[in-house]
Amino acid sequence: MNELIRMPDSAEKTQVPESRDVSQIYDTAAGDEIFALAAEIYPICRSITGNGVRETLRILGRYIDIDINEVPTGTEVYDWTIPPEWNIRNAYIKDARGHKVVDFADLNLHVMSYSVPIRKHVTLSELRSHIHSLPEQPDVIPYRTSYYSQDWGFCMAHRQVLSLRDETYEVMIDSTLDEGSLTYGEYLIKGETDEEFLLSAHICHPSLANDNCSGIALLTYLASRLSTIKTRYSYRFLFAPGTIGSIAWLALNEPTVKRIKHGLVLSMVGDGGGPTYKKSRQSDAKIDRAVSHVLRHSGLKPSILDFSPYGYDERQYCSPAFNLPVGLFQRSKFGAIPQYHTSADNLDFIRPEYLAQSYRLIASTLDAIENDVMYLNTNPKCEPQLGRRGLYAAIGGTQDVEASRMAMLWVLNLSDGIHSLLDIAERAELPFAAIRCAADLLRQSGLLIDPIC
Amino acid sequence: MNELIRMPDSAEKTQVPESRDVSQIYDTAAGDEIFALAAEIYPICRSITGNGVRETLRILGRYIDIDINEVPTGTEVYDWTIPPEWNIRNAYIKDARGHKVVDFADLNLHVMSYSVPIRKHVTLSELRSHIHSLPEQPDVIPYRTSYYSQDWGFCMAHRQVLSLRDETYEVMIDSTLDEGSLTYGEYLIKGETDEEFLLSAHICHPSLANDNCSGIALLTYLASRLSTIKTRYSYRFLFAPGTIGSIAWLALNEPTVKRIKHGLVLSMVGDGGGPTYKKSRQSDAKIDRAVSHVLRHSGLKPSILDFSPYGYDERQYCSPAFNLPVGLFQRSKFGAIPQYHTSADNLDFIRPEYLAQSYRLIASTLDAIENDVMYLNTNPKCEPQLGRRGLYAAIGGTQDVEASRMAMLWVLNLSDGIHSLLDIAERAELPFAAIRCAADLLRQSGLLIDPIC
Amino acid sequence: MNELIRMPDSAEKTQVPESRDVSQIYDTAAGDEIFALAAEIYPICRSITGNGVRETLRILGRYIDIDINEVPTGTEVYDWTIPPEWNIRNAYIKDARGHKVVDFADLNLHVMSYSVPIRKHVTLSELRSHIHSLPEQPDVIPYRTSYYSQDWGFCMAHRQVLSLRDETYEVMIDSTLDEGSLTYGEYLIKGETDEEFLLSAHICHPSLANDNCSGIALLTYLASRLSTIKTRYSYRFLFAPGTIGSIAWLALNEPTVKRIKHGLVLSMVGDGGGPTYKKSRQSDAKIDRAVSHVLRHSGLKPSILDFSPYGYDERQYCSPAFNLPVGLFQRSKFGAIPQYHTSADNLDFIRPEYLAQSYRLIASTLDAIENDVMYLNTNPKCEPQLGRRGLYAAIGGTQDVEASRMAMLWVLNLSDGIHSLLDIAERAELPFAAIRCAADLLRQSGLLIDPIC
Repeated sequence: MNELIRMPDSAEKTQVPESRDVSQIYDTAAGDEIFALAAEIYPICRSITGNGVRETLRILGRYIDIDINEVPTGTEVYDWTIPPEWNIRNAYIKDARGHKVVDFADLNLHVMSYSVPIRKHVTLSELRSHIHSLPEQPDVIPYRTSYYSQDWGFCMAHRQVLSLRDETYEVMIDSTLDEGSLTYGEYLIKGETDEEFLLSAHICHPSLANDNCSGIALLTYLASRLSTIKTRYSYRFLFAPGTIGSIAWLALNEPTVKRIKHGLVLSMVGDGGGPTYKKSRQSDAKIDRAVSHVLRHSGLKPSILDFSPYGYDERQYCSPAFNLPVGLFQRSKFGAIPQYHTSADNLDFIRPEYLAQSYRLIASTLDAIENDVMYLNTNPKCEPQLGRRGLYAAIGGTQDVEASRMAMLWVLNLSDGIHSLLDIAERAELPFAAIRCAADLLRQSGLLIDPIC
Repeated sequence: MNELIRMPDSAEKTQVPESRDVSQIYDTAAGDEIFALAAEIYPICRSITGNGVRETLRILGRYIDIDINEVPTGTEVYDWTIPPEWNIRNAYIKDARGHKVVDFADLNLHVMSYSVPIRKHVTLSELRSHIHSLPEQPDVIPYRTSYYSQDWGFCMAHRQVLSLRDETYEVMIDSTLDEGSLTYGEYLIKGETDEEFLLSAHICHPSLANDNCSGIALLTYLASRLSTIKTRYSYRFLFAPGTIGSIAWLALNEPTVKRIKHGLVLSMVGDGGGPTYKKSRQSDAKIDRAVSHVLRHSGLKPSILDFSPYGYDERQYCSPAFNLPVGLFQRSKFGAIPQYHTSADNLDFIRPEYLAQSYRLIASTLDAIENDVMYLNTNPKCEPQLGRRGLYAAIGGTQDVEASRMAMLWVLNLSDGIHSLLDIAERAELPFAAIRCAADLLRQSGLLIDPIC
Repeated sequence: MNELIRMPDSAEKTQVPESRDVSQIYDTAAGDEIFALAAEIYPICRSITGNGVRETLRILGRYIDIDINEVPTGTEVYDWTIPPEWNIRNAYIKDARGHKVVDFADLNLHVMSYSVPIRKHVTLSELRSHIHSLPEQPDVIPYRTSYYSQDWGFCMAHRQVLSLRDETYEVMIDSTLDEGSLTYGEYLIKGETDEEFLLSAHICHPSLANDNCSGIALLTYLASRLSTIKTRYSYRFLFAPGTIGSIAWLALNEPTVKRIKHGLVLSMVGDGGGPTYKKSRQSDAKIDRAVSHVLRHSGLKPSILDFSPYGYDERQYCSPAFNLPVGLFQRSKFGAIPQYHTSADNLDFIRPEYLAQSYRLIASTLDAIENDVMYLNTNPKCEPQLGRRGLYAAIGGTQDVEASRMAMLWVLNLSDGIHSLLDIAERAELPFAAIRCAADLLRQSGLLIDPIC
């Protein structure tokens, strides 16, 4: 007989805590709200530093009480140094007749990010050596950066490049690269414990809707909704420039890092692909199991990928000295779609319904993590008689009754002080929500109790 | 070099025990004998209590010296209470002309089990509210019970229900629900040790041939044959009503429960489907490995299923405080065939050849469990020279020689004090019987000894 | 944070050892050289004892300074006894007209190995009882032996057997079975450590090109090339008769056996099948992982087989008291091809290009084992900035840059004091050579150091 199961004396019985029902934040308006916010920040010219990031964070501040942090140029953060701050007011290429061939004001992707200021007349030949285009996708404009080498460049549709006449052009980039700072935003929801769940989105890309206006907007909306309910974990939302931003945050917040128990990086959450989850370096962390479980029961066709050291900021969170349980959630996998890092990643590429779907998947994951507790069956010898407690028909609908009964039988059978609700959901191959609901019913009937802590 | 292998001094050498050859009970008459017994008990109206169970056990008593146990109505057994005893003498529905529309005497399935006594005239409308039928299988009569709510009912072919005219009917059920007891039968074969192997069949279903006249009959025959040979384990055969019966037995026999080392629940063992094995909650208990191994080498197409808390009495044996290594053996999986819990589960649905097959699979499983011992290769450095001991041709036939040699090489290679014969059979992917036979030959040649206990 | 990673003080830092680049021995001439040697030893009549083995070893001695060992007839080696030495000068069958039907001088396979001397006239009927042929492969001559029972025999194409007329034949075998010895060859390359890598080929088959002139020749060439470079391990090459030879070696060299850390048996390495690797009994030894890894990245279609106690001398190395990490490398699996143990296993059956391929696969395996070290990332918090160290373009070609960067990211991410380079290559699913190359670049940049020993 299983000696692990010791029933507490009734005097020892601890109070049954309330289930933390994150599903309360499911919201039919979510898709439209997230889309609207993504659309609002889409036109802003962001980079790894500069006013575009500040303006974006100011807009997010309308939804959540976000902290703005500035890290001065030259600050050393592990192996890296915060670069000069880049800002840009205007840029264009004019042809011999003074006609603007490309104009930054039309689309900020036209200028390579971190381009040094320039104003001169150049031959077509010299101009072309500074133009980036995609011969295989001749109608879209690529996104390019030059953060760590001094250079300038324009990005154009290849079809337009081919149409340029052999004449003299005026190139003008009115940018500045000065002492300044790198800016990131942070928002903390205090939970019952100091243990933290990190949610992180990169905020350094200019007009790319999916990558990552979608992630920024979803996290902001999630933060505003999550702040209205009680949670076990504290939730830290980080909006920081990719790579250098998360490196700076880690370097400046090591004590906080130790409190992170679960985490997700979000990017490209608004297209109809995937969903895709790349596991943390730990590979079987609770976050890995929870996301995988939620995605497998999503009715979609998820891809669950092993960790690799290439991707988004999970690269830094999962570097060997941190090895944090932080995975990457996306819809389409980065780099695997033609829109990736081009002007085709615009507001037509993301949709409210996909944003709503992603939002719900993330919320369901949080629900599983928040409620992944371990109960004890108070009646561990044989099954209790569910019928006389009215538990057979506790939920309406024949199929629901059947599913609810199976969920109750699984919870009873595995609530042995060894298996948590997520363990049970995995083994039962039932949605976590069904298991949690069954556990709630059984607790109310006194058939489950919290184990002695 | 493997320090785990220490050869005993010759003085320490223990006597090589005889192989316990359960295959002695393989029997060409088994199929017919089991079928005849199943056919004999098929007509009896069994329920979870009452004289039908007693009459059935009395018939089994012709084969084995079965103990009859009575648990009085009202006895508390864990979360349950033994219900009143139900008996039935007669029942019918008569139409307006006094013609019997259904008659209990024709088929006991016609009356819902545990129907309260009734005798009155009813309209067709009221009658239909008490009739159970299967619109999707209009020619068969379903099996229904109402153990824990006071109700009455008839079961009919749906085609017949549709033909009922709108007139007044007389319904009569001559049943009793009184203080009495729940009855179960138990039979113990004492082995060399007190460690027990539990074999359990539910005995509460009326005229359903496969579910479970087949299981009752097979276990009875097995018990009678097994009692004729020497075994290491003691074998406990339990014939009890489903759910409440096994719960009662567990509640009243906790000291015995601790001795159970392996167990099987048998139901529906006479049809041509499967074989199906549902693993114990432990999932890798020796019984799980032994049955899986035997089924994989059966030449049939077995389904090996993970444990789930829905099914037969393994639900109780595998409840968390017991967590016994008890699996479920069936042919077709319960609920997965149209005959399940209908009048189509009659004597035409089961066949002597399938009963014989099931019998042999169970006996082979017992053989593997009985003989799953661990030997030491007395010659662990390099292979011994089999040829000069005449072991190459120890078994006739070229293919047999080849198979026997492979079995001997595997046994020699893995008899290192870590691997048991079942471990070896699994790794070699050879039938357990071949491995046991090879081990017997090698022991006779002195190439294997028992390890020091 | 990962407490396992402790950075050494600079004073503690150990010298970075040179990478041991076994790929230096890759060699475009290898295929032709190995083939030429195999062809030279092909005609010799070898058996488990006798002058054929000595002559073969003498030829190998032209390439490597091989030690010749003689084990006298009658020596007990574990369960076995060294048999009398067999030598043969001549043999034939003559028909009634004195015409030689078969002649040992044409092909040594014509005489069953270990045939006792005979000279007499026999009827066709008696002759046929001593003739071995293959009715299903009527044009090839089988290879047969009779080591441990006194007998004589001839091997012939079945078509020729059928054409024999019913007349008297003269059979003559001029062989000797006398006190003598069993001969084996051994060659040791001393490495930086006394830990040994055993490479073993059987040397007892007569004119069978693939089985095992190919293995003997490959190992000899490998030994001669490997002796020119620095290695961590000492390499022991063993050329011994199958079964009795390896048993004798193990029995006479137990202290050496304890030093063996990795090992491979090679046979049939010259045909175009496979490659095939049969794992050691340990099943996940480093040799098993290294060969599997190399084969999976070979561009060929390898078969990776679980250990079984049937095959070549790995049977003895993997007997339970030794349980050495020794696997079997082959091209086609033994017994799985029609040429196996017939005259069709001749010099047409093996090819320089396949020998070269096999040679390279073995050398790549040695490279992985030699260089499977564990490094520490000196910058374990976040990624180091590869760009400013010029590491992004350290290797030419766009695809190479990409692959090299992924390899560097993997090495940095997993060089945590837990994962060795082979672990990293496996998890990254990148060729070991790419991982080793990335590690070399990172060491040169100071981004990796050796852990404190």
